[in-house]
Amino acid sequence: MPEWRKDPLVKRWVVIATERGKRPCDFKVPQNEKKGGRCPLCPGHEGDTPPEVLAFRERGTSPDMPGWWVRVVPNKFPAVRIEAQTGVRRHGVYDVMDGLGAHEVVVEAPDHEAYLDALDERQLEEVIWAWQQRSLDLRRDTRLKYIQIFKNFGQTAGASLEHTHSQILATPMVPVDIQEEMQGFKHYAWSTGRCVLCDVLAQEVSERQRVVLETDKFISFAPFASRFPFETWIVPREHQHDFASIREEQVRDLARVLRSTLLRLRQSVGGPPFNMVLHTAPVNEPDTIHYHWHLEILPRLTIMAGFELGTGFYINPTPPEMAAEVLREQEVFCPPPVYAGGEREAVQYV
Amino acid sequence: MPEWRKDPLVKRWVVIATERGKRPCDFKVPQNEKKGGRCPLCPGHEGDTPPEVLAFRERGTSPDMPGWWVRVVPNKFPAVRIEAQTGVRRHGVYDVMDGLGAHEVVVEAPDHEAYLDALDERQLEEVIWAWQQRSLDLRRDTRLKYIQIFKNFGQTAGASLEHTHSQILATPMVPVDIQEEMQGFKHYAWSTGRCVLCDVLAQEVSERQRVVLETDKFISFAPFASRFPFETWIVPREHQHDFASIREEQVRDLARVLRSTLLRLRQSVGGPPFNMVLHTAPVNEPDTIHYHWHLEILPRLTIMAGFELGTGFYINPTPPEMAAEVLREQEVFCPPPVYAGGEREAVQYV
Repeated sequence: MPEWRKDPLVKRWVVIATERGKRPCDFKVPQNEKKGGRCPLCPGHEGDTPPEVLAFRERGTSPDMPGWWVRVVPNKFPAVRIEAQTGVRRHGVYDVMDGLGAHEVVVEAPDHEAYLDALDERQLEEVIWAWQQRSLDLRRDTRLKYIQIFKNFGQTAGASLEHTHSQILATPMVPVDIQEEMQGFKHYAWSTGRCVLCDVLAQEVSERQRVVLETDKFISFAPFASRFPFETWIVPREHQHDFASIREEQVRDLARVLRSTLLRLRQSVGGPPFNMVLHTAPVNEPDTIHYHWHLEILPRLTIMAGFELGTGFYINPTPPEMAAEVLREQEVFCPPPVYAGGEREAVQYV
Repeated sequence: MPEWRKDPLVKRWVVIATERGKRPCDFKVPQNEKKGGRCPLCPGHEGDTPPEVLAFRERGTSPDMPGWWVRVVPNKFPAVRIEAQTGVRRHGVYDVMDGLGAHEVVVEAPDHEAYLDALDERQLEEVIWAWQQRSLDLRRDTRLKYIQIFKNFGQTAGASLEHTHSQILATPMVPVDIQEEMQGFKHYAWSTGRCVLCDVLAQEVSERQRVVLETDKFISFAPFASRFPFETWIVPREHQHDFASIREEQVRDLARVLRSTLLRLRQSVGGPPFNMVLHTAPVNEPDTIHYHWHLEILPRLTIMAGFELGTGFYINPTPPEMAAEVLREQEVFCPPPVYAGGEREAVQYV
């Protein structure tokens, strides 16, 4: 059973894989040698993964068989486990608990070669609905306090499988970074009566210096204090604390903005490795309405090194104003759309 | 002039290079093509760097000429500048200030090929003294609040020059990670009357599961909640808040422990890229005596990806107990010592 261990100095928890620990020789195989071979996420290989917990699939097809266009499965090598006990134990000066949590893989399309931004907007909408449905389902386990949806694209951003996918990792405590954002939202609301991210959007729309894209429901912009070159946030215009309360017209709009933002990034910067991180309110926790959910796209063109790891501060060589201009003015060439879906029949196995 | 910009949600500041921003094409040259060519840190090339601010050099040799065994110069491409104004300006909802700070390079030895751990212990002592002297000197500028000493080793850990060196980056605000550690130290002291890191050392010494090395003055161990495989902290046994108050017998001991720890890491794990980060009390700030300085060695065998960037939590596949055992039991083969120094004559130009 993996363990959550708390740093004795700060509010940081770490999952330690206590069972099958990696010894020095396990790190000696260069990551890129793992490429190729049989893809466990491809149609026809459904048996290579644990049974699906959600799939959008053609009417009449069976679970864990081809016929799906989005499929969610438990991670075969999960960092955390749902069959764990809750409750923090003391070990002298340290706090430790069982490696409780959920770790799932969202297969974003059947096509092994597709990039997320090469997907048809309808296909992307389906991915967003899958995120939303899993978020709603996972929170029914009231031991879970946060549902982190994220995507790693490219080896240097931590992706170990090529097939287009995102991940969901649910944790039994609110992550330190989300705690701090919550504090930020609350303090601002207490002192001004307003939401800081709503105010940020208003300022961005009026200044127009860092905006990449604007639609009816969303704004895509390079944040004022971007940590990474070409960092881009996608934020709903409406104050909404919980991603899972997203409505149909928002999903349509988000798919459009996300696809266009990622295409612009690919076509202007050349398909950089990136992490995409959904920030949303904690679940099964009181007092979260001040939060304003948003999606952060973090290209990994620079390396987080000693300064960043020591301080929590960042050095960014690309001003967000320049990044936004490059992305905004990029002419977008749309690839042929990839849409695998027929009529939707959401089959959810829990 | 670069700018410090504060994230409107959290206590994170980012240095934005506003002058010579990196455009997309600047990122397209793979980093490893930069290798080779003339090294600006080698003896004989002193003119390639800004004038030295500190050098330990042979009697009778001139500044910015060969004859040094440790040399500190301002970074030629500094992230922050000393000739900047202090004072935070409001820009709507955002806070911004000039890119005030200092950014220096510590050339750890004249020999281009030497690794830090291949240096003779006397040479390493000299490096530690250089860190200490620069820390004392930089804090005389009372606008500076933190002096971050760090080392990036290997390209994937962010090193852009091969020649063995460390860096010093002084900031006009206390970094968020240090603020949080300060809070941790204070809260523990208020509730127990003791230092949490002193208690950690006592527990580590009694359990012996995570200890790598023990000497008279220092303990090297794999922390209970290690973020990275083979993460190792070197901590003075004595409660000491400020690294710069290190005494001669401690410097001797630290050089020994640091060298042995790095050699063990190289010889058991195979010279992984790593960041080394000195955590010490803020300067020109009140109420810092609860801090307990320490050196963190962070091997970069895993990739910080979406989960880590989204949450501030980490997943570590190597239990620290296993890492410590590997490092502790590694037989150390000492390379021929590299010591360039004669009698010390510290020449400091400020």
